[in-house]
Amino acid sequence: MFRGLARADAVSFANRGLQYGDGLFETLRVYRGEVPLWPRHLARLREGAARLGIAVPEPAFVEARIAELMAGVEAGVLKLLLTRGDGGRGYAPPAEAVPVWMLAQHALPASQGALRLHPCETRLAAQPALAGIKHCNRLEQVLARAEAERAGCDEGLVRDTDGTPVCATSANVLVLRDGRWWTPSVARCGVAGVLRGWLLDAGLVAEAALSMEDVLSAEGLALCNAVRGILPVSSLGARSWAIPAALTDLQARLAMAYPMFTSPETTP
Amino acid sequence: MFRGLARADAVSFANRGLQYGDGLFETLRVYRGEVPLWPRHLARLREGAARLGIAVPEPAFVEARIAELMAGVEAGVLKLLLTRGDGGRGYAPPAEAVPVWMLAQHALPASQGALRLHPCETRLAAQPALAGIKHCNRLEQVLARAEAERAGCDEGLVRDTDGTPVCATSANVLVLRDGRWWTPSVARCGVAGVLRGWLLDAGLVAEAALSMEDVLSAEGLALCNAVRGILPVSSLGARSWAIPAALTDLQARLAMAYPMFTSPETTP
Repeated sequence: MFRGLARADAVSFANRGLQYGDGLFETLRVYRGEVPLWPRHLARLREGAARLGIAVPEPAFVEARIAELMAGVEAGVLKLLLTRGDGGRGYAPPAEAVPVWMLAQHALPASQGALRLHPCETRLAAQPALAGIKHCNRLEQVLARAEAERAGCDEGLVRDTDGTPVCATSANVLVLRDGRWWTPSVARCGVAGVLRGWLLDAGLVAEAALSMEDVLSAEGLALCNAVRGILPVSSLGARSWAIPAALTDLQARLAMAYPMFTSPETTP
Repeated sequence: MFRGLARADAVSFANRGLQYGDGLFETLRVYRGEVPLWPRHLARLREGAARLGIAVPEPAFVEARIAELMAGVEAGVLKLLLTRGDGGRGYAPPAEAVPVWMLAQHALPASQGALRLHPCETRLAAQPALAGIKHCNRLEQVLARAEAERAGCDEGLVRDTDGTPVCATSANVLVLRDGRWWTPSVARCGVAGVLRGWLLDAGLVAEAALSMEDVLSAEGLALCNAVRGILPVSSLGARSWAIPAALTDLQARLAMAYPMFTSPETTP
């Protein structure tokens, strides 16, 4: 079912991941040799593979390889890539394509204070067939992130082509209004973040349609992803915020469930 | 300026083409050791690279490599891939990224009779920032082409999210109405095909907004791309067409300018 799995140094030129971005990825936070959010990552990977028509091999093999790689690692990041495998010229997925797993190990990013967000001009196109899943067609995120960097910001708030805020380039966005946390839908574009999913299931955050005005007039703003947990936002363009008590509370709730997110992110 | 260029057998796992589809490609038809449409391919590649912020090295090196590879080749296809190069984790394009050229040689596809088109359900999302250029984010085309294959068709007609016909999965579409040839705009989605560009510049085809009804009630339908030239369409779903005289005429005009497209495509 799969070619293999390695801290891959190289991949075939014929790999459809390279040719067309025909693959999926997950970015896993490692804690004391384990990946606490693995079941959620695997569920999203399976959903993405079903949508793209990529066969997902039984996870036991990749799980064993992750365990082996991460044994004794106190904290780190693992990137898992699953491509459709090799193909010839042409978009048609070859019936005989053998999916290829790849793993790469990264250091945990340095902890950071509150984030400055840039309101990106790059928009996310509405494509329900690809929305939510973590596929490898990421040029919109590349362009938006480059904009944020040019603006000297830490991240970017990205809107869809109707101007509705959706997410950051590599995190979901949490918006505090009337003392409650809200997050935009990712049914038309954006990624259904693993930590966003946990926050929704835990009833700590709810989905809402939010305009740019709703975001700018919010009581507070935060980002979340599976590597960094919940991070406060200090500004979006000219608008700035102090860190609200509701954010510290949300971080504490997360840390209770997942101690890897305890510090220093909760005490920025 | 660039890492190198080879009939690349392998590419680094860190290549952003693999990670994010962060690259561009061109598919070149080779004729008697040369690439007659090269100036148009290079122009589109440069336009794409400018939009994505990838530096294009001076073409002399890649031109020499193509000439060397193709010497003595009567007919063939060459795929040129230009990625942003290697990067670490994260979407931000690394300032120090060194673009990587790659080349792969393929056989000319077998000639084919008139094509059966499937009206694909997969839609193209409107994204002007990426429309027209030949970037490597091609999951929409992969999904649409898979649909066409499942339907037992040769290609698919792909619409945008408003239902407006745009192109085929790997060709532009030409629609005969009132004795003239028309092709949809690619300003919001789709690829600005090299052969489409030549046909427009030659005044043989004009751009027009065409509804699905306009396509179905057309006097004839054809596809065009830089590898296969102009190909007749025999059906779109339940609608079928004979090959109109205007198509044979269009193919003859193309063959006068580019003899590589003379036969057998002009006499299907």
